[in-house]
Amino acid sequence: MIVVGELINSTRPRVGEAIRERKPAVIQELAVRQAEAGADYLDVNAGARPDQEAEDMAWLVDTVQAVTEAPLCIDSPDPEVIEAGLARHRGQALVNSFTAEPERRSAVLPLAERHGARVVGLTLDQRGMPETAAQRVEIALTLIAAAAEHGIAAGDLFIDPLVRPISSEGEQGRAVLEAISGIKHEAPEANVICGLSNISYGLPDRRLVNRTFLAMAVAAGLDAALIDSLDRWLMAALCAAEALIGRDEYCADYLAAYRAGAFDG
Amino acid sequence: MIVVGELINSTRPRVGEAIRERKPAVIQELAVRQAEAGADYLDVNAGARPDQEAEDMAWLVDTVQAVTEAPLCIDSPDPEVIEAGLARHRGQALVNSFTAEPERRSAVLPLAERHGARVVGLTLDQRGMPETAAQRVEIALTLIAAAAEHGIAAGDLFIDPLVRPISSEGEQGRAVLEAISGIKHEAPEANVICGLSNISYGLPDRRLVNRTFLAMAVAAGLDAALIDSLDRWLMAALCAAEALIGRDEYCADYLAAYRAGAFDG
Repeated sequence: MIVVGELINSTRPRVGEAIRERKPAVIQELAVRQAEAGADYLDVNAGARPDQEAEDMAWLVDTVQAVTEAPLCIDSPDPEVIEAGLARHRGQALVNSFTAEPERRSAVLPLAERHGARVVGLTLDQRGMPETAAQRVEIALTLIAAAAEHGIAAGDLFIDPLVRPISSEGEQGRAVLEAISGIKHEAPEANVICGLSNISYGLPDRRLVNRTFLAMAVAAGLDAALIDSLDRWLMAALCAAEALIGRDEYCADYLAAYRAGAFDG
Repeated sequence: MIVVGELINSTRPRVGEAIRERKPAVIQELAVRQAEAGADYLDVNAGARPDQEAEDMAWLVDTVQAVTEAPLCIDSPDPEVIEAGLARHRGQALVNSFTAEPERRSAVLPLAERHGARVVGLTLDQRGMPETAAQRVEIALTLIAAAAEHGIAAGDLFIDPLVRPISSEGEQGRAVLEAISGIKHEAPEANVICGLSNISYGLPDRRLVNRTFLAMAVAAGLDAALIDSLDRWLMAALCAAEALIGRDEYCADYLAAYRAGAFDG
């Protein structure tokens, strides 16, 4: 499982303040802790100040890469911001995101291509948010074709089937799980990623719902997840899920995590 | 989800002692607590003393039914023991179990038919334990046909795809999940049940593995589970899983469980 640590997000008050006041310590501590806890990529989002987002993104990339080797997930819908992030990024970044809307595809994919970045594609097109699994799979195939036109292989594409809250739409959990397995069936070489936490919006004990859904999504074929890698229970569930699904030979990683105390407390 | 409480099992030392010494209090307290915690059936197993198993089973059935309305799951491979349990049972019992082996089918199914009981069928035949999902689905269809010959509808049949430890065979988690969805695809009217805890045999922190697997199995279509209903974390994961899979309209049961403090501590 590829874990994208979600915490460096300007909509979180402490992070937003650190970005506004150009205080690197808060950001850098979050970067180091998430990577140590198992994040493979660190998401960086500077969307709280749209008029200064490109400048803030460039600062975030510099600030985070000063303390960690982990590649970053440049998180913005705005091509100018993505470009600002990619221009400063060292190594192969992940761009988050483009959609199947023609103008988003044509603006974002050339940037990813030019910088050799991997890219997240949302299953969203000019018709709006998808309701069913079948709609998500159909749009995923459009995303894969669009990426290929820009020389981006399916293995460098991460399709996000757009998790929606079960509190308001009870069938959306199943729809996303079916979309994950459907996309992996149609295009096994493409990666599927979920931003997990939307699933539990509006419910109490959201972490219970999130980690339970993560286990289900891993079984459905999920390759990557945008999650809070500092949530020990979530990471424990992920570790168990990988062993259960046969991705952890001899349960070696599970046993190592146990011995390291990862499941305590 | 149909929960079968697994704790009244004579291989557990306190339960075995209570059966040997005919002390009802230990058994009855376990019965009441499991039912209060959400068990729909209570499993009763008297297998620790094979030479007195029928007599012990009859005592167990009387002892448990004296304090709870929950129907029992008469757990024995021995037709004489099953008969002894069914003869004493009030209401519709669940027999656990028969297999696709000809002599087990012909010995157990007539008993279930005569007593109007529901019945668990293990996906096991004269060739031994199944390895793959396809073998399990094939045997499941044999079980359904055999039950039908005795007038037992698929809706009264619970197919157990036989969970095996991932610690020794890393692919067995996925094989069981695929078997669950395969059986539900081929015979949606039949129930699928799992005895969960084998999955984690040989691993540390077994409860983490069990509840993570339960979430996956619910997503695959599991209808019933033989579990420890006193494990609060397991029951919390089950509650979240049901909401996530669209079996809990408006998340009403999840919200009620939260308000009742089911997810605390």
